[in-house]
Amino acid sequence: MPSGTLLSPARRCVIGVDLGGTKTAAGVVDEDGTVHASGSRPTPATAGAAAILATAVGLVAGMLEQARAAGLEPVAVGIGSAGVINTLDGSVVSATDSLTGWAGTPLAAHVAEQSGLPAFAVNDVHAHNLGEHWVGASAGADSSLLVAVGTGVGGSLILAGAPHLGARAVAGHAGHLASPLAYDDGGRPLPCSCGRAGHVEAIASGPSIALLYRRLAGGDGAADPVSAVDVAVRAAAGEPLALRALTTGATAAGQAVGGLANMLDPSVVVVGGGVAGAGDLWWTPFRAALHAELMDPLADLPVVPAALGSGAAIVGAARFAYNRLSAELNAPQEHHHV
Amino acid sequence: MPSGTLLSPARRCVIGVDLGGTKTAAGVVDEDGTVHASGSRPTPATAGAAAILATAVGLVAGMLEQARAAGLEPVAVGIGSAGVINTLDGSVVSATDSLTGWAGTPLAAHVAEQSGLPAFAVNDVHAHNLGEHWVGASAGADSSLLVAVGTGVGGSLILAGAPHLGARAVAGHAGHLASPLAYDDGGRPLPCSCGRAGHVEAIASGPSIALLYRRLAGGDGAADPVSAVDVAVRAAAGEPLALRALTTGATAAGQAVGGLANMLDPSVVVVGGGVAGAGDLWWTPFRAALHAELMDPLADLPVVPAALGSGAAIVGAARFAYNRLSAELNAPQEHHHV
Repeated sequence: MPSGTLLSPARRCVIGVDLGGTKTAAGVVDEDGTVHASGSRPTPATAGAAAILATAVGLVAGMLEQARAAGLEPVAVGIGSAGVINTLDGSVVSATDSLTGWAGTPLAAHVAEQSGLPAFAVNDVHAHNLGEHWVGASAGADSSLLVAVGTGVGGSLILAGAPHLGARAVAGHAGHLASPLAYDDGGRPLPCSCGRAGHVEAIASGPSIALLYRRLAGGDGAADPVSAVDVAVRAAAGEPLALRALTTGATAAGQAVGGLANMLDPSVVVVGGGVAGAGDLWWTPFRAALHAELMDPLADLPVVPAALGSGAAIVGAARFAYNRLSAELNAPQEHHHV
Repeated sequence: MPSGTLLSPARRCVIGVDLGGTKTAAGVVDEDGTVHASGSRPTPATAGAAAILATAVGLVAGMLEQARAAGLEPVAVGIGSAGVINTLDGSVVSATDSLTGWAGTPLAAHVAEQSGLPAFAVNDVHAHNLGEHWVGASAGADSSLLVAVGTGVGGSLILAGAPHLGARAVAGHAGHLASPLAYDDGGRPLPCSCGRAGHVEAIASGPSIALLYRRLAGGDGAADPVSAVDVAVRAAAGEPLALRALTTGATAAGQAVGGLANMLDPSVVVVGGGVAGAGDLWWTPFRAALHAELMDPLADLPVVPAALGSGAAIVGAARFAYNRLSAELNAPQEHHHV
């Protein structure tokens, strides 16, 4: 063992966790935002909260071992989770059906008990934004609006270094604005995952793009169960209906983000999520629609792709934990602002 | 003179100014938000910046006299002005054509020089929101989204006691989001005052409601030059086309505010402006459309009318000045956060 390891104090690290409907991932994140090790497992999404928690706790335990083996001192666990998260106690307020029984879970408290470390939880899109804002596409920006276009359409606004969480921890639902494009040929608003209709998510999300393609192609969906990835591939091959579905989704997303920029005037807009990964066929109509909405003083608004890839929420969840640790040091009896 | 006046220190006050395209108003506002005197003059909107400034300065001088006569000690001037305002130096970044030559005016600096007091300026919708948040409809709320539906559709989000101004002082333009209703019968987006098209303001503002009514009535506008007030009066009398125009505008506004609430999750929504003063014929479809957009956790979101009437921006402009004075006391070299 090199003597330096014995003489210098261990560098601190946080275990960052990204808990999604498909996959749970974790990593060892140091104070510079560097990930020293990471791993992931499928989320047992329909097996109930206990199984989901056990998967996360198991990953955290493995990361703690790796951190200590690397000479790092873990000081907390930060968790970015799907669902509406009460950041004051790290519990799950509500979640979609993709995570069965997840609502009501005392997520942070359970992970803290099992890991022996302070644990903090925040919504995964906010974690994504915190990661990009720390060491990614919006690093150094005063404020940042992140929009993630994937299975759903989510958002997060960072102001003064912290995500705007809202009065009920609901803030960030960028996909649940009315969209002029979220209507069928008969003028009826398309149903949205939130139970309402006519929202951006109902036309711009991956599943919505796939559904639109199947509708344009005249099928009932069962006959040709294409995914959004299939649509992107067919669009790239020049298939007109696939191109039209992808363009429509991108246009709806761009309109919404442009309108939100007029309202929120962020320093930068960061765009992530699987659908935004479809390349120029998506980005070109997205940018065109976004810029068509912007008021003159926003003409130079930077709009950039997310830079950290799938590890962004791990890094951002760790950042959230570091922020909370310093907030507690500075004001031991104040847990309201992060 | 009662001896108490000599013995006790004079109570502090701020002169609050509301500088709009039609009227400039000012008032003496004490530290409790009480208005002790007020006055107004028509804004010489097309006579150039010097004339507009002279009107404001004259009003401020009159209010200073009244304040001192009442035994109050004026400590600053706070100005809420139409246009995009750089709050760091109180200058006008940009303005619509309704105030000729207003862009570029060193508003706060000029008023400070002429009044001999520190002067601060902020956009008038933010001032309105600050007034309501201080002593009006959202007093005591952690955060507040104000939407003003009148000649235009404006907005302001208060977080932690201060309006969110944005990276370019543009934040708050709630009227410049895409609206599914801002299209003509041929599916073309309606032109918006910002130079874009298809925005909420292009269907929900007073002039837009009047224009829609004239279009529905088959006229070209010149034949029957009704105002939004006329439309409201005709709607109240049961005229179906007037009712339809008013309802369409209210529905577009409600959809937009509901979507913004999903994104921003404010403690409360406050609605002001002349069009919102049309009563139940406007409020009923507005509330219905707003609630149809809200995600489940927002079902109980309070949505309330502005409470302070036309004096709100005077009070809020004064509040802005008080905030800036304390920020300067606490951090003499820090002018960035208000």
